[in-house]
Amino acid sequence: MEFIIQKDLFLNTLRIAEHISSTKGIQIILSNVYIEATKENEIILKSSDLDIGVILKIKSEVKTPGKITLPSKKLSEIISKLPKDEVTFESSEETNKAKITSGRSKFELMGISALEYPVIISEEDIESFKNNISLEIKPFINAIKQTVYAASTTENNSIYNGVFISVNEKTLEMAATDGARLSMVIEEIENKEGKIFEAIIPSRTLAEFIRFSSGCTGEKVEIMKKEGQIIFKINENIMISRSIEGQYPKYKQIIPKDNEKIVIVSREELINALDRTSSMVEEKKNVVKLTFEKNQLSLVVDNPELGDSNDFVDIEFEEEEPIKIAFNCKYLLDVLRNYESEKIRIELKPKLAPALIKPEDNKKYLALIMPIQIKE
Amino acid sequence: MEFIIQKDLFLNTLRIAEHISSTKGIQIILSNVYIEATKENEIILKSSDLDIGVILKIKSEVKTPGKITLPSKKLSEIISKLPKDEVTFESSEETNKAKITSGRSKFELMGISALEYPVIISEEDIESFKNNISLEIKPFINAIKQTVYAASTTENNSIYNGVFISVNEKTLEMAATDGARLSMVIEEIENKEGKIFEAIIPSRTLAEFIRFSSGCTGEKVEIMKKEGQIIFKINENIMISRSIEGQYPKYKQIIPKDNEKIVIVSREELINALDRTSSMVEEKKNVVKLTFEKNQLSLVVDNPELGDSNDFVDIEFEEEEPIKIAFNCKYLLDVLRNYESEKIRIELKPKLAPALIKPEDNKKYLALIMPIQIKE
Repeated sequence: MEFIIQKDLFLNTLRIAEHISSTKGIQIILSNVYIEATKENEIILKSSDLDIGVILKIKSEVKTPGKITLPSKKLSEIISKLPKDEVTFESSEETNKAKITSGRSKFELMGISALEYPVIISEEDIESFKNNISLEIKPFINAIKQTVYAASTTENNSIYNGVFISVNEKTLEMAATDGARLSMVIEEIENKEGKIFEAIIPSRTLAEFIRFSSGCTGEKVEIMKKEGQIIFKINENIMISRSIEGQYPKYKQIIPKDNEKIVIVSREELINALDRTSSMVEEKKNVVKLTFEKNQLSLVVDNPELGDSNDFVDIEFEEEEPIKIAFNCKYLLDVLRNYESEKIRIELKPKLAPALIKPEDNKKYLALIMPIQIKE
Repeated sequence: MEFIIQKDLFLNTLRIAEHISSTKGIQIILSNVYIEATKENEIILKSSDLDIGVILKIKSEVKTPGKITLPSKKLSEIISKLPKDEVTFESSEETNKAKITSGRSKFELMGISALEYPVIISEEDIESFKNNISLEIKPFINAIKQTVYAASTTENNSIYNGVFISVNEKTLEMAATDGARLSMVIEEIENKEGKIFEAIIPSRTLAEFIRFSSGCTGEKVEIMKKEGQIIFKINENIMISRSIEGQYPKYKQIIPKDNEKIVIVSREELINALDRTSSMVEEKKNVVKLTFEKNQLSLVVDNPELGDSNDFVDIEFEEEEPIKIAFNCKYLLDVLRNYESEKIRIELKPKLAPALIKPEDNKKYLALIMPIQIKE
């Protein structure tokens, strides 16, 4: 194999592959990246950690087709340090060694035969995937960022570790919940074919998708699924992951419709006050007690081991009757830090009811947080 | 106790104390910082981890004198997040609680009685220290940075963990060695009293001294010692540490005087080539083989598990006979990254002799690295 490639182009793609490659070392070859040069002047990189796999393609000047696998961390370290923009890459399928040359720097790196690399997915397999829809990447990534934080990280392989995605004629809807909070996004989209699509995608897969898509040129992603698996395709680049099977909770049923007490507050001021307050919360419990009064919100933390704190934020709230409610401080901060609007809207109901938190300036996003029952 | 203080001034000083305070938790009170307000309108902060202690003083408006100790990490986290520049600090010696107020934010933090805090050093004790000299802080810090990296980090409490400091009529000389390399600095100083001073100071103490001095206004540091202890004093601020007793090796005897083969090379180009090369070295051994030829230096690494690398750097070297020599790649990089000159000067002798590395543009700094014996 021999090809010439631009350093930065190669490195960008290699880093996506490197991030997926396994470091756990159950199968040594999975810590390698698979590199193939085709006679169609394409470089194909493959990488997998058994949960997620990627197949990435770059155009390049291929002199001799061939393939090899190389340690992905070490390769990406070497490429990043090369002195010149142009990199010559040669390898031999007899010795399983690769020679990397740039300016006066030469590296010879030992690899493993590409024949030993597991098949990530074959062309025929891809064809067996059904239900493909096409989404614009930008609103999809936006929706990922607005939901993924609410998925559970403690469960394992349960539907709570996933983000629910549902596409219909006009909207992309995504939601995540860990049982104590819910995040939801409804984006209007163009879906001319009007196909309906539903899946539960592991939150880690979606986080990796953001990285994957940043390395692909292309404005649309095609999503395909079959039993237990999901494929994202941007141009010729493929990311495959397991999906989570099961019935996603009917989260819309728990969104209250009669939260009639409305609070408007500066997002930044509330973040700052919660952040200060969070210094004093008891670890794991994270309880902050909020009292919404006329034009003023007070934040109180009592930590029997450490001490207590008391803070105030100006709010727009016209009710005469104060509302007292306790929340997980971290959950509030997660929501507020993901929103971008200057002001946020909190919709409350007195007594232990879930609170709704929305950006003041758009109706696409919604977060729900369950209150915490505390002794007065 | 009650005082009013500027947030940033308090925080800067608190962070120095926090960094010294112990996190190991052998004595819980050592993870606290001692805070005292005096009727002379001074705030005194004390902190210690038993190896190193600091006493720091800040001017402030003291309403009621008093003292307390508070968890240093938590306190510094809280102060850093306060909303206003002005901080009111109150505490009670009955409840051992401190109240911190800034704008509408109030924190009440539980502490431990200041009476339980160990004495770091008393005024009388300070007077028992002898041999005090006064140094300008800037050249002293420079000399620390140019030497401290060569001290051993693997030994424990041996002279190799320390930096040797020697002051005479006209010069400050500092040196560190771990047995395989040596760093040395000779700075010209003004030492009007002509006092002679020698000590071996743990490298960690010197690293903390840099942080300590950054928080003190003042251009001079007074250094005092007695058996096993050393004090640094900048104005009213004190840092005390154990010193290392023993006979420091006569390092000047190992500096060769007949290294007559002179190489001049761009520091940056050599750093880049060594950095690339370092990707391929065997861990722990770090061996890079250098061949100095007429106007060209080649860098070779053979790593039986990973592969090999080959790099070249232009040098000024006029000898016809090449010199082959192997070094610890990391040791070379440590020296080059600490120097600041554009070009460096390497002084060599053929066969297994130590190499001398100096900045081309000044004679104050010298580094010596022992070659590594390898099979050809």
